[in-house]
Amino acid sequence: MVGAGQLARMTAQAAVGLGIGFRVLAAAAGESAAQVCAGTQIGDYRSLDDLLAFGGGCDVVTFDHEHVPRPHLEALERAGRSVRPGPDALRYAQDKRAMRARLAGLDVACPRSGPAAGPGDVAGFAAGSGWPVVLKAVSGGYDGKGVWVCDGPDQAAEVLARALPRGIDLIVEEHVAFERELAVLVARSPSGQGAAYPVVQTVQRDGVCREVLAPAPGLAAATAVTAQRLGLAVAAGVGVTGMLAVELFQTPRGLLVNELAMRPHNSGHWTIEGARTSQFEQHLRAVLDLPLGSPALAAPHAVMVNVLGGDDPDLHARLVHVMAADPGVKVHLYGKAVRPGRKVGHVTAVGDDVEELRDRAGRAACYLSHGTERG
Amino acid sequence: MVGAGQLARMTAQAAVGLGIGFRVLAAAAGESAAQVCAGTQIGDYRSLDDLLAFGGGCDVVTFDHEHVPRPHLEALERAGRSVRPGPDALRYAQDKRAMRARLAGLDVACPRSGPAAGPGDVAGFAAGSGWPVVLKAVSGGYDGKGVWVCDGPDQAAEVLARALPRGIDLIVEEHVAFERELAVLVARSPSGQGAAYPVVQTVQRDGVCREVLAPAPGLAAATAVTAQRLGLAVAAGVGVTGMLAVELFQTPRGLLVNELAMRPHNSGHWTIEGARTSQFEQHLRAVLDLPLGSPALAAPHAVMVNVLGGDDPDLHARLVHVMAADPGVKVHLYGKAVRPGRKVGHVTAVGDDVEELRDRAGRAACYLSHGTERG
Repeated sequence: MVGAGQLARMTAQAAVGLGIGFRVLAAAAGESAAQVCAGTQIGDYRSLDDLLAFGGGCDVVTFDHEHVPRPHLEALERAGRSVRPGPDALRYAQDKRAMRARLAGLDVACPRSGPAAGPGDVAGFAAGSGWPVVLKAVSGGYDGKGVWVCDGPDQAAEVLARALPRGIDLIVEEHVAFERELAVLVARSPSGQGAAYPVVQTVQRDGVCREVLAPAPGLAAATAVTAQRLGLAVAAGVGVTGMLAVELFQTPRGLLVNELAMRPHNSGHWTIEGARTSQFEQHLRAVLDLPLGSPALAAPHAVMVNVLGGDDPDLHARLVHVMAADPGVKVHLYGKAVRPGRKVGHVTAVGDDVEELRDRAGRAACYLSHGTERG
Repeated sequence: MVGAGQLARMTAQAAVGLGIGFRVLAAAAGESAAQVCAGTQIGDYRSLDDLLAFGGGCDVVTFDHEHVPRPHLEALERAGRSVRPGPDALRYAQDKRAMRARLAGLDVACPRSGPAAGPGDVAGFAAGSGWPVVLKAVSGGYDGKGVWVCDGPDQAAEVLARALPRGIDLIVEEHVAFERELAVLVARSPSGQGAAYPVVQTVQRDGVCREVLAPAPGLAAATAVTAQRLGLAVAAGVGVTGMLAVELFQTPRGLLVNELAMRPHNSGHWTIEGARTSQFEQHLRAVLDLPLGSPALAAPHAVMVNVLGGDDPDLHARLVHVMAADPGVKVHLYGKAVRPGRKVGHVTAVGDDVEELRDRAGRAACYLSHGTERG
């Protein structure tokens, strides 16, 4: 796996039981996955030499992010490696303009979008969609980075003035008045087998995922099936292998696809305890072309809350209190240095009553972040 | 953790989420835990120098087996390491004679036992208990090794004649006509916190654990509570820190303690999927003096079946078929070379119907061993 963040860390954990050789390409020995994975190699994913050296020892190369340049992916393939997901699929996670075009070709509903090469484009788009609009970097954004909600032309002009001279290519999208955000995770193997997890509700704050409720409370069965079919259709349509996360807006005019991610995803961390097969094991099974595991729920409800860094770096001291306060929640720490707002871990609670689980997981995560149970 | 077998491997997996530094002392880089754990050091647990060098980087030293000599444990403590469980507790897992005496002191019922320094001792013992009797090595045995069931004096004489010249110290015990075998796993922390898992039934064949049913089917609630209290009392009585497995005979005259193990144990592998807190995480929480996690069941039933090596070394080829046949079972492979009869993995199934789970886990494990679903 190229990349050694928390996704690779949890994938390494899942690899243990499969009895496979698993290694990561890390930028530094202190990275999240490098701390725990025996097969760590140090290198730069932007260096073709480093990638080829890393891939030389692998049957299959996969990724914990979407940032490996396409020419490098193609060179890995030419060197005989199985690259999963492959460059033709990853393109749609790397390039939002290509993604919107492909989804339109698949007849998948998305927010309206258009080019944003200058203020005139944005004003013209807003004349149809109204303000606010959303400006998005075509590539490289994540966790709210590379996304700007603009209330009017002045704000849009400011974003453009900062982005365009730095070579950041933008598109403009309508600001969707959604009812809530959902996500559907599906796996697809090179043999074409697919598996869809139950649809979840995600709760974001400041562009960052804070909470995931599995399954999405009160979601109509027909809507859930629609979302799962949509996820499987997109996975097949873009030819992904491995996990695909489809972030959705639930709106009065139906489900709209917001984003795609082709890897294990924050909206699937609940699957470690909450599903028969975790998304991390499922990703490995999919990219290795093993039969997929059951994505069924392991409990009626699971709630995951992210632990964001606060002001105090000593997570471990607070862990003791969280463990004492609630012996039933599951804490996952990523071994990352605490910085305010950085994802440094997550907490999952599983059980029968979703509101109780939200309360418990929320208290634990908040205490880990700030040393108080509400904040 | 000293030792790098499958117990250390699964403990390494559990350490990932706790965000702690975890390392193993392995005899060789290819050992089960060394394959997956970033913090592997190579050394010999029988060498005091190696142990001290390993322990020098650790706040707490724990074990995946009971074979570290007591003087080495004491030297580690003198060097300022926290050794958990400590030498005074580990003694009762290392020395069956001391264990029987201590349990008698705690008023815990055990099979009758006595010295076996020669044929006369055994004949005298059998005059009271009847034949068969069980001869046991006082130390070093596991998985049926170091245990001999003797039907009469000739067989006993033969065992003695082989063991005594090799310096193997023996005791004799009555052969208990048990109804079934049970096990209770408890954790105890240095602060004295205790937690008891649901009592399980274990099914052995040829002295090797084959199957674990959690909770033990049809066990009277009062008996389960008795067993859990017994486990907690033994843990406190011998002063163990970490996991303690108490293997029990269920008999018409009540529960008798067969063996003690002071580490994660085969009878607790089901807890990875079947309990809120796995025994591996619990062991770490206990030896680190963190508050213990909930030992509650995560599903009505869990069944674990060991995968023993068969004649064909290519486990991975068979894994594909098992995954395809039952997407809901969980396979754990240990990365060990296949040898006939060797524990190379286990399969867990969780759900509502214990007989269905036995069937599913048993088929999967049997197929992994032999390429057939029944054998």
